[in-house]
Amino acid sequence: LEDDAQRRTQWQIKGSSLSLNTHNRIRNIVEALQIKPNPQKPMIPLSIGDPTTFGNLKAADETMKAVLRSLESGKFNGYAHTQGHEASRQAVAQYSAHQRPGGTIDPSEVLLCSGCSSALEYCILALAERGQNILVPRPGFCLYHTLAEGLDIEVRYYELLPEKQWRADLRQLESLIDANTAALLINNPSNPCGSVYDEEHLLELIDICERHYLPIIADEIYEHFVFPGSRHVAVSSLTREVPVLSCGGLTKRFLVPGWRMGWIIVHDHHKRLGTALNGLKNMCGRILGTNTIIQGALPDILTKTPQSYFDSVIEVLHTNAQLAYKMLKAVPGLNPVMPNGAMYMMIGVCIERFLAFKDDTHFVQELVNEQSVFCLPGSCFSYPGYIRIVLTVPAAMLEEACVRIAEFCDTHYKKDNRTLIEDGLLEDGHIHY
Amino acid sequence: LEDDAQRRTQWQIKGSSLSLNTHNRIRNIVEALQIKPNPQKPMIPLSIGDPTTFGNLKAADETMKAVLRSLESGKFNGYAHTQGHEASRQAVAQYSAHQRPGGTIDPSEVLLCSGCSSALEYCILALAERGQNILVPRPGFCLYHTLAEGLDIEVRYYELLPEKQWRADLRQLESLIDANTAALLINNPSNPCGSVYDEEHLLELIDICERHYLPIIADEIYEHFVFPGSRHVAVSSLTREVPVLSCGGLTKRFLVPGWRMGWIIVHDHHKRLGTALNGLKNMCGRILGTNTIIQGALPDILTKTPQSYFDSVIEVLHTNAQLAYKMLKAVPGLNPVMPNGAMYMMIGVCIERFLAFKDDTHFVQELVNEQSVFCLPGSCFSYPGYIRIVLTVPAAMLEEACVRIAEFCDTHYKKDNRTLIEDGLLEDGHIHY
Ligand SMILES: Cc1ncc(COP(=O)(O)O)c(C=O)c1O
Ligand SMILES: Cc1ncc(COP(=O)(O)O)c(C=O)c1O
Repeated sequence: LEDDAQRRTQWQIKGSSLSLNTHNRIRNIVEALQIKPNPQKPMIPLSIGDPTTFGNLKAADETMKAVLRSLESGKFNGYAHTQGHEASRQAVAQYSAHQRPGGTIDPSEVLLCSGCSSALEYCILALAERGQNILVPRPGFCLYHTLAEGLDIEVRYYELLPEKQWRADLRQLESLIDANTAALLINNPSNPCGSVYDEEHLLELIDICERHYLPIIADEIYEHFVFPGSRHVAVSSLTREVPVLSCGGLTKRFLVPGWRMGWIIVHDHHKRLGTALNGLKNMCGRILGTNTIIQGALPDILTKTPQSYFDSVIEVLHTNAQLAYKMLKAVPGLNPVMPNGAMYMMIGVCIERFLAFKDDTHFVQELVNEQSVFCLPGSCFSYPGYIRIVLTVPAAMLEEACVRIAEFCDTHYKKDNRTLIEDGLLEDGHIHY
Repeated sequence: LEDDAQRRTQWQIKGSSLSLNTHNRIRNIVEALQIKPNPQKPMIPLSIGDPTTFGNLKAADETMKAVLRSLESGKFNGYAHTQGHEASRQAVAQYSAHQRPGGTIDPSEVLLCSGCSSALEYCILALAERGQNILVPRPGFCLYHTLAEGLDIEVRYYELLPEKQWRADLRQLESLIDANTAALLINNPSNPCGSVYDEEHLLELIDICERHYLPIIADEIYEHFVFPGSRHVAVSSLTREVPVLSCGGLTKRFLVPGWRMGWIIVHDHHKRLGTALNGLKNMCGRILGTNTIIQGALPDILTKTPQSYFDSVIEVLHTNAQLAYKMLKAVPGLNPVMPNGAMYMMIGVCIERFLAFKDDTHFVQELVNEQSVFCLPGSCFSYPGYIRIVLTVPAAMLEEACVRIAEFCDTHYKKDNRTLIEDGLLEDGHIHY
């Protein structure tokens, strides 16, 4: 019947470029490692970003009971509005009031999503057109890349400066902006850095966005994971000029990552988002919303989980951070950066001093093979030369891990002075690591 | 610093074409209606695709208890594998054994998704490249279009024939295929038709796919919603040659649409999906999986919900179908098509006989305004000239609705014979509707 040129003559199914370019960088790097943990030593995974893995950190009773009540009411089995039940969005709006001092957040400005991941997906995909670019931090959470790349949205990295508590290099950031830049993504507090920006730095970032007419996507999933002495400031609370899409959720603070409850809060005082706001709402219609049992529980989860619970979680993270920092700071060749929040610590590895290893990935691999301690290489966050550990493990485990890391470093640190001298490395009085 | 041409000089944020082309046809059409229900008559919404709305159909106790146990175990708060927990996928594999007689489905061939919607999204987006096309049924569920269009995946409609129990017009279907056709989407049982295909017709569809080397996306969310006398045959059970991605979930059969638990089962005997399978798995990594409390409950939900429960739901739907069919068949100007499954009935409206109304949408609007009965116009399913009712309402409500529809039709049916004669309509002795 048809033109033969129009027809296939064999099976030739291929994955779409969207699907094939949806890379998970962490998985790709980790799978390429040649790992055989030391059978003499029990494995300590300091790589796992799931805070519930070890059993020391658990959801609060009040959080669990809220879901129980929602389930037992039998009222939350049907479809919700694709942006979420009104009452649930209202609860998130109230919970997030600090993001808009002197104003109220309307439930219509809240979009419930399947985890913060899908909140980020909708923001990036609604704001950025194919061929446009977004600015994301380096080091940074690799999901931004995963979400953007398949849609031919270019990811441009602005550099965070470890010696400045991971503030952004503003000049370099600004130099990335062109007419095709669709948004600036800020992750505060940061995974993997654990940094918490102060008002001053946030105002600097806002200033750039204002001058370049750029909306902000604020990944604030760790907004309440802040150690004593630091304070989280929502970027939206500092500007009425720059539209801010704040992405958050239950995942981290309530220790329920599997529940997949996240949200977008739209801050857009001057209604500058234009059609992007419709686009954002349309995106919620693609998979018809998020789990309704959790939605039904949101009002209680957000109001009844006690402050003492949150404090105790922060206490664990902070104590662990102090422990690991102290122990690893003392290890020649390592340079931990003390975090102020989130649940991670970045540790600089002076890789030139470890002659046996060619890079952070190699270092991590051999650390598992010798000591059964698994960290993520900085390469997973586009930042070679560092490793990231999680602070969510039980303290005793973390201590043991640090002892083993120290032993490992001790074994391999500048073993061969001759080579170092040949390489001219020892001549450099002030090696920066 | 930069070239001024490179910089924006004002706010000009726009939604991406992906987000703006993510249309919900039903919502667009419904929102354009000018509706003021008759205050004398309580509203009967026969439009709502959520079977739990009216309270007559409820999730089984066993289903609810399975979730309760999952929640109380405290074991399902963490992240799962992005494709789902192994045990949950194993449970779906066993539950779906009928889809592959003489073979076993491996958990690695099951991908859990956020509802059947996201299962469909991943299948369409992984198989079809921008600029390619997929074949979808008309009348058909509008989500296929919603999901594809924003990614510049063309949707080509193959026609279903009401007079042949909504079988596909095979010649017309085949004529749509070209080298850019990425997949055939089959929805069986069908929303909105309620049709259930027999083996013979499925084999005809498979034959076309085999000759054109096309994979099948099978939307089988209603696979167990089949009335006595009909039998659902999974299309995957009839072929080893054609790769089939079967999309299903808890939504309809277990009456829990809000839970957002769906899945893809990959049938690919000859491993012809190639990189598309990786692509499909990558897609699951975008939003990090689906709600884990429901995942934890899946093994029990799928094995402990009793047959008697399912039977009683089918009984309600079937009785309602018979009732509505009988009552509406007797109404001049209407031509209901008796469904064999799912939870909908399509009703042909001989619109030429209703002089006051210009099309199905107008008919639906005035039906609400006069009788407070709300049906969806066929236009929502790309099929003007029909209206769709749901069969999930309580019988008494359905009966009352049918009485009102009959009254409405009686009022408006070929009121003005003169015009009919002028239009030459009455000369046609055998008007087909
Ligand atoms: C910075 C950051 N954003 C977003 C997410 C994703 O959160 P969710 O599990 O709610 O999708 C994570 C998870 O690790 C994260 O670290
Ligand atoms: C044919 C069809 N497929 C898929 C879906 C979506 O199902 P879910 O709610 O599981 O996403 C529906 C819902 O009405 C449907 O009718």
